[in-house]
Amino acid sequence: MIQLVIDMEGSDFGNKETQQACLDFLKDYEDVSLILVGKTCEYKDKFDLYSSRVKFVEANDIIPMEVSPLKLLRAKESSMVKGLNELVSQNYDGFVTAGSSGGFITGASLIVKKLNNVKKAAFCAPFITKVKGKQTVILDIGASNTNTPEELLGFAIMGSVFSNLVLNIGNPSVYLLSNGVEKGKGTQEIVEAYDLLEENKLINFKGNCEARDALDGTHDVIVTPGFSGNIFLKTAEGVAKMVNDMIKASFKRSLSSKIGYLLSKKGFDEMKETMNYRKTGGALLLGLQKVCVKAHGNSNSYAFYHAIKVAYLMAQSHICEKLMEKFDERQ
Amino acid sequence: MIQLVIDMEGSDFGNKETQQACLDFLKDYEDVSLILVGKTCEYKDKFDLYSSRVKFVEANDIIPMEVSPLKLLRAKESSMVKGLNELVSQNYDGFVTAGSSGGFITGASLIVKKLNNVKKAAFCAPFITKVKGKQTVILDIGASNTNTPEELLGFAIMGSVFSNLVLNIGNPSVYLLSNGVEKGKGTQEIVEAYDLLEENKLINFKGNCEARDALDGTHDVIVTPGFSGNIFLKTAEGVAKMVNDMIKASFKRSLSSKIGYLLSKKGFDEMKETMNYRKTGGALLLGLQKVCVKAHGNSNSYAFYHAIKVAYLMAQSHICEKLMEKFDERQ
Repeated sequence: MIQLVIDMEGSDFGNKETQQACLDFLKDYEDVSLILVGKTCEYKDKFDLYSSRVKFVEANDIIPMEVSPLKLLRAKESSMVKGLNELVSQNYDGFVTAGSSGGFITGASLIVKKLNNVKKAAFCAPFITKVKGKQTVILDIGASNTNTPEELLGFAIMGSVFSNLVLNIGNPSVYLLSNGVEKGKGTQEIVEAYDLLEENKLINFKGNCEARDALDGTHDVIVTPGFSGNIFLKTAEGVAKMVNDMIKASFKRSLSSKIGYLLSKKGFDEMKETMNYRKTGGALLLGLQKVCVKAHGNSNSYAFYHAIKVAYLMAQSHICEKLMEKFDERQ
Repeated sequence: MIQLVIDMEGSDFGNKETQQACLDFLKDYEDVSLILVGKTCEYKDKFDLYSSRVKFVEANDIIPMEVSPLKLLRAKESSMVKGLNELVSQNYDGFVTAGSSGGFITGASLIVKKLNNVKKAAFCAPFITKVKGKQTVILDIGASNTNTPEELLGFAIMGSVFSNLVLNIGNPSVYLLSNGVEKGKGTQEIVEAYDLLEENKLINFKGNCEARDALDGTHDVIVTPGFSGNIFLKTAEGVAKMVNDMIKASFKRSLSSKIGYLLSKKGFDEMKETMNYRKTGGALLLGLQKVCVKAHGNSNSYAFYHAIKVAYLMAQSHICEKLMEKFDERQ
């Protein structure tokens, strides 16, 4: 039985969408039990059907979007901190939240221990690409600001293991995000990391990758320091949203354009499906002793379901144990 | 008379589009004379009408897209190096090329001197935003990799002067690109630059800006170290291209979607116009003693015309002299 702790609160929609996601997940996966942390009285009775596989932990506070590490750790009655403490003290398998990203990164890093020999945990996300169904794993996207070459090598190993175990990619290709494909391009850290990655036998290193090609569907894992990874993530989000808003406005412009939409709807629905980031299940922290997944703050039940699924797949594949072995081997 | 040196070769289309752009520009701007550097025999006779305002410099070599600094400087017969040497030796006002970006940055930085007290030149581009006609100036997008806080302050001043003189923005707002809007977010350099920019009276500093909001049309100048600026630029290009390709594919899918396109064409044409980066005229180096503009490699005559126009506006507004004063004041 895989035991996952769920932060029911903290999403933009309170516990409404998380409830539905948990109910759906319990129905689909019989080898899962969920520990639901939050305002239990608001949903307890809805889980009667699954009472043998559900535990409830009462937590009535919610971590705000912006929170200092100190305030976070003091918020012991919040669903996020209580959930993380349950995860560790009860030795459960994983944790899923749609709450504050900053709170999640800080909380998980402070409460859940790092794996032996891992220098820095990485915030990692599978990105949708222009190839339908193909996801590219990019890390770090914001747990750190700067990273040493040695830390970047650690990210490469963790990203490869995730891509292999969770996305089922055999021998995943690994790239460094840089400002040119040639060896020698980029900051001093990137140039030095290039050598480390090239020499390392645990990964299938292919060289540098430019940001403009990162989402063309030909890369399995892309490694970057946290600051530039965060710039990448947010630029991609911003531009995709800008273009999508423009498409909507173009179709809503007149009666004729509305009919135009109806006539070309199939193609645009398919495009929407290709770009459906909700299927990726959000982001996760790699390098900790437990599985920790962060769903988008505006996750609907579908997106949150997929975040639980990522945690489930990670726990089921024993990713933390596998990573521990890899990082032990390296010593 | 404003005298601009034009690298006629080096664009993806040889000198075909640059010819047309120069002819159009000479027609529209009577106070301009052009020094055309390239395979002069291929187009000399076409400029008969403007013979009093055109000079020809023969140069038959072309700088390849990827070129080492050493190879570049040795390529004295290339249109780019010959053009830059003409610019300096004849004391002309500006230089425009659609050739290799790397070659341009290296060549201009080595051949054209930096302004007094400028620590680093910045590669700077006006970006289109979601607000039609509104451009946001972002620098540095790739002349450097890392930058000191002091260099970032220099970029802020140069970007403000450009925004004011060329884009006609009064008291332009200045932001630092970071991974959060709060003070204290970002790398050590960003955190320290925040203090420097906040104290400085030459600029209108507004704080940090996240990459996802950078193109929403509410920022005039955004300052970033070259490496993250380059990631920003190329992510934006890559995602915009990806979505545009998807839109095209959606419309081309079937007969009905093609009719759909015709019915909604007006809105999409307007969107295309809003996103028409060709109007921005490409990128430029700020901090040098001469105006140096780099058009997109795949510039058609319209885009190259706008690149010449940016050089013209910069020269006309005496931007180099104004920058020199600003940087003298700071001492």
